[in-house]
Amino acid sequence: MALRVMKFGGTSVGSPEKIRNVARRVGRACEEGDRVVVVVSAMGGETDRLTKLAHDIASRPDRREMDVLLSSGERVSIALLAMAVQKLGHPAESLTGRQVGIVTDEDFTRARIREVRGERLRKALDEGKVAVVAGFQGISPSEDVTTLGRGGSDLTAVALAAALQADVCDIYTDVDGVYTADPNIVPQARKLERISYEEMLEMASLGAKVLYTRSVEYAARYKVPICVRSSFNEDEGTMVIEEDRSMEQVLVSGVTLSKNDTKLTIEGVPDRPGIAAGIFSPLSEAGISVDMIVQNVGRQGTTDITFTVMKNEAARAMEVMKPVLEETGAAGVTADDHLAKLSIVGIGMRSHAGVAARMFKALADEGINIYSIGTSEIKISCLIEAKYGELATRVLHDAFGLEAGAGTREMDL
Amino acid sequence: MALRVMKFGGTSVGSPEKIRNVARRVGRACEEGDRVVVVVSAMGGETDRLTKLAHDIASRPDRREMDVLLSSGERVSIALLAMAVQKLGHPAESLTGRQVGIVTDEDFTRARIREVRGERLRKALDEGKVAVVAGFQGISPSEDVTTLGRGGSDLTAVALAAALQADVCDIYTDVDGVYTADPNIVPQARKLERISYEEMLEMASLGAKVLYTRSVEYAARYKVPICVRSSFNEDEGTMVIEEDRSMEQVLVSGVTLSKNDTKLTIEGVPDRPGIAAGIFSPLSEAGISVDMIVQNVGRQGTTDITFTVMKNEAARAMEVMKPVLEETGAAGVTADDHLAKLSIVGIGMRSHAGVAARMFKALADEGINIYSIGTSEIKISCLIEAKYGELATRVLHDAFGLEAGAGTREMDL
Repeated sequence: MALRVMKFGGTSVGSPEKIRNVARRVGRACEEGDRVVVVVSAMGGETDRLTKLAHDIASRPDRREMDVLLSSGERVSIALLAMAVQKLGHPAESLTGRQVGIVTDEDFTRARIREVRGERLRKALDEGKVAVVAGFQGISPSEDVTTLGRGGSDLTAVALAAALQADVCDIYTDVDGVYTADPNIVPQARKLERISYEEMLEMASLGAKVLYTRSVEYAARYKVPICVRSSFNEDEGTMVIEEDRSMEQVLVSGVTLSKNDTKLTIEGVPDRPGIAAGIFSPLSEAGISVDMIVQNVGRQGTTDITFTVMKNEAARAMEVMKPVLEETGAAGVTADDHLAKLSIVGIGMRSHAGVAARMFKALADEGINIYSIGTSEIKISCLIEAKYGELATRVLHDAFGLEAGAGTREMDL
Repeated sequence: MALRVMKFGGTSVGSPEKIRNVARRVGRACEEGDRVVVVVSAMGGETDRLTKLAHDIASRPDRREMDVLLSSGERVSIALLAMAVQKLGHPAESLTGRQVGIVTDEDFTRARIREVRGERLRKALDEGKVAVVAGFQGISPSEDVTTLGRGGSDLTAVALAAALQADVCDIYTDVDGVYTADPNIVPQARKLERISYEEMLEMASLGAKVLYTRSVEYAARYKVPICVRSSFNEDEGTMVIEEDRSMEQVLVSGVTLSKNDTKLTIEGVPDRPGIAAGIFSPLSEAGISVDMIVQNVGRQGTTDITFTVMKNEAARAMEVMKPVLEETGAAGVTADDHLAKLSIVGIGMRSHAGVAARMFKALADEGINIYSIGTSEIKISCLIEAKYGELATRVLHDAFGLEAGAGTREMDL
């Protein structure tokens, strides 16, 4: 008899018919003898509808009120799903973020979880009920409702699974698992049976949309086994779990492509100590994430500094840097947003050389130029021209033999 | 500096534009120096939309879940209204039924208020904020959300006004006060400046739709002055207040007409002691309200018993009585729902004779037959043929001189 947390997103509960489908799925888990906690998001489209209403009232609505508004969406879906589960003959009870005791800080619209109490949740389970819990929401120490920001319902599911030491946290989505690459780009992409938290974290931050990094971080910290699977079929999905020895055999687990970056180049920066700090500190203070920093040796005692920021933060980054650049006497800044970030991820890289070389050679063989390179212990990212993004993804997928068997192994090198 | 509770129904907050109107009204009260609590219902149409969703899932949805579902509607309207008030430069804070401490019993979908704590509400007011409170909802002792049933938002407003000892509880509606008769029927109907709780209670239960009896009862118990007024204009409205000596001068305050009753006649009941109890006890146990009971002397030791029930309970009443009637050997039951209940209400009747006679004469002069008569200390009701209802209303309005000055006075008799 396992304890399962099952999470369904807005698309999966977008209509009464879909809610009945979810209820049937929950019912089957009960019939198999599992104890079940279901976490749901607001019905698809509801959050947009509410956000639009708020913006009809105020261009910059108060964040506390925004949370009162948005958190109403999950109350609708938990009540409807609880009714649907009851209809199938299984006792069920809806519970809000407050009722399950998800205590957060007071940073409305993007609150962080401080504590999960869960007494009421345990009581419902002990009484043999399916607990239907509102995702995305919590309560501040002063008893105001808060919301957890993007991917908040996944985070609720993982946090409850951690608090209950659940056997598994099933995340039902519109894809049926984590793939070696986006199947829309690489038709031969293979669904991974399992992947380590660390790899999933890199893939999530590199453009794989299946999970948000916050949920994966939380799961890694509390060792919550996540299963990413489809709401629309019964396939096994991908387990996101702790790394074990067998995983190290796999050099590369996946290839990701992201077109969310803008490359900024500051030209003619005087080449003296502290200059990089002078440029990047104001960006960091403005909350702008900087990635893939490269410093090129320039002419006549100056240097060029290149880095990437998120596309939607590029304009603000230019603004923030303006006074610093005037001060340092830099020649100017150029922005390029026709670039794509292509990455390979795999914990096997830690113990194996030659991965980067194989990546660069495969791209070179296709005549694809690399503008910048960034690495971590378990990933290598290259900035290339956006128009080659999809081709390059297929090239790397092929070069690392990801379509076959269980990924590229040591002996293949 | 007055403390005002202002209540707006679903129609008044049915769109962002209407919410802005309400906010402007609240803003004006603030600018006049008042401290303001605003109670709002769900946006017009929202409760119907949610109810339909529930019925798409289950024909008899669980009542606890129904309350979780329906209470989401007011969360939307309080958040939006708080934003709109803030936009006008007045600090505002939304508060749910739980947050203002409306503690109810556990009778979901029709909970009764047990206690109003209000600490958080007082805190918001002390901080100089407009408190925007969700109507219609409370919280059970075990911290489940409950709803208060029909007219619940009015009840919330009155209960908060009582707890805060507010100077006035403004109920904004689509009519601009309480009239001597329905102005759709009697064009000369006059808006009352004030009316006693007791008269309002009779008028509410006799078909005046402006307030529900529960709210008036609550207001009477705690002596909360209610002002019924229009959301669409600035007119003064009608004060519903404690009776004073000057009110007794007014014989009749209003004429009401209701077509919600069915007359049931049990024929040939054996005329022996206890027979009435034998018939009415099962109805009372089934929760069916009985009104206007008349017992006619019949032939050969039998009697006819006539009474009215609400139209929508007539079929159930017939069902409930069936075994009793078989037992007592009654001849049969007939139902007549082509009747209207015409009533006059006024606390002046207590101390004045001749009112009933004038009513009966006025109807007789128009050739309108009376089928049953029911009285209380401050009202007289007649059952007449439904098709004469509107005519009879105008006749009585005229007979008691309600269109002129301040109602019929003692000296007019």
